[in-house]
Amino acid sequence: MTEPLTERSARIVAARKLTRRTGRDAAGLFLAEGRQAVGEALADPAGVREVFATEAAATAHADLLAGSPVPVRPVTDRAAAALSETVTPQGLVAVCALRDVPADSLLGAPPQLAVALAELADPGNAGTVLRTADACGAGAVVFGAGSADPYGGKAVRASAGSLFHLDVVRGAPLPGLLPRLQAAGVTVLAADGGGEAALDEVAGTGGLAGPVLWLFGNEARGVPAELAALADARVRIPMRGRAESLNLAAAAAICLYATQLAQG
Amino acid sequence: MTEPLTERSARIVAARKLTRRTGRDAAGLFLAEGRQAVGEALADPAGVREVFATEAAATAHADLLAGSPVPVRPVTDRAAAALSETVTPQGLVAVCALRDVPADSLLGAPPQLAVALAELADPGNAGTVLRTADACGAGAVVFGAGSADPYGGKAVRASAGSLFHLDVVRGAPLPGLLPRLQAAGVTVLAADGGGEAALDEVAGTGGLAGPVLWLFGNEARGVPAELAALADARVRIPMRGRAESLNLAAAAAICLYATQLAQG
Repeated sequence: MTEPLTERSARIVAARKLTRRTGRDAAGLFLAEGRQAVGEALADPAGVREVFATEAAATAHADLLAGSPVPVRPVTDRAAAALSETVTPQGLVAVCALRDVPADSLLGAPPQLAVALAELADPGNAGTVLRTADACGAGAVVFGAGSADPYGGKAVRASAGSLFHLDVVRGAPLPGLLPRLQAAGVTVLAADGGGEAALDEVAGTGGLAGPVLWLFGNEARGVPAELAALADARVRIPMRGRAESLNLAAAAAICLYATQLAQG
Repeated sequence: MTEPLTERSARIVAARKLTRRTGRDAAGLFLAEGRQAVGEALADPAGVREVFATEAAATAHADLLAGSPVPVRPVTDRAAAALSETVTPQGLVAVCALRDVPADSLLGAPPQLAVALAELADPGNAGTVLRTADACGAGAVVFGAGSADPYGGKAVRASAGSLFHLDVVRGAPLPGLLPRLQAAGVTVLAADGGGEAALDEVAGTGGLAGPVLWLFGNEARGVPAELAALADARVRIPMRGRAESLNLAAAAAICLYATQLAQG
């Protein structure tokens, strides 16, 4: 019987550094917590270095861990809590390799649906948009320079496993990338509450046929003007009610679902 | 020049109790923080008891407060922080009367679009759904017994002023209310990832023509089975990707926007 690792053991101290972006980027690793995320991670075991499990979690998730080709290390409850960013740690954490692909990989055969995020601030929104993009069949999500990190604990949790389903590009210089995607046949649509095109009209006139990349911006400031100017169209969601705007993740859900529908 | 109220003054101590649900329900009051919410509140001054403003906020929002028919009380920064549930208090807080309407008020002339929430847990989702419902022209949002309180600080903030735009019903016993709404001509649709009807098919066959009430459930457990059984249909959002489900607020955005579109 192996003694469980404590929060003071070297492995846990090292893993704890992955709760910060600088630590993740230095090590090329991130943490995936909970049954859903760990299960998705283990679907591609080459991307998983090790799994930490408390005694309770090892019992609760024995089915998931039984066939694990990756070492499962027993840890104390306090060690698991040290790796968690939630108030109720799940006791099950995988150390995974960052899954970034280079921006250029999108140029050869662009996906029918992709998303780019410019200066998105909230990690919860980053994860929620990943989840929605995955649900709607997007092939890639591009996190522009200055956007929240999809590998942070809150983003990974909000993505509900979807982080492992699609291509992730980080730190892309969007002013250079968007024109190259357009040259490769991608229609770039900027979601913009003051846009000149209404979503239902764009959908009705074949404008979502694809390949399409949706560009979403900062929660408060929207899409930066210099990027909106590069888009093929600035698209607003028509609203018959009195709200001034939609929450960013809600707007993204509407745009991405409309695109899935239009693309059949 | 009036001395600013401190966090120890009786008015602020009393207002601070409104940061808890028990305090709100006992007093029949809630707090609306920030320029947007206070501005929306002051559009109906009869519903506002008083406004607290720090010196900086009074200067920044002089235009908004100049014509206020409601007393504006100077407060210290610490007093404003004591009333805030954010890490960056805005220095501007209105004490407002709860805006509940009785559930029966929906029966006479049901709105074309309404929302009911069953056991919704997250206050941020409560506010986001309010905001989306408002954007899509809903007339009412019903918070079933056991749902998050729309008057909590996080919900008010997430609603971005929409709490003041539509009718709010709280604590409604949904098992009794839904059949009465149906008898009044309302189609009740339960959003359910395993539902037998696909949203695009329901939309395509006139099923969203209205009046429609969308029923959303708990973030983890979905709509309670006994309520789903009462609905006219259980509707799933078709997903071509690999995500198991959508975030609740994202799913609500898709359903409500589809309904707005269908209702022209």
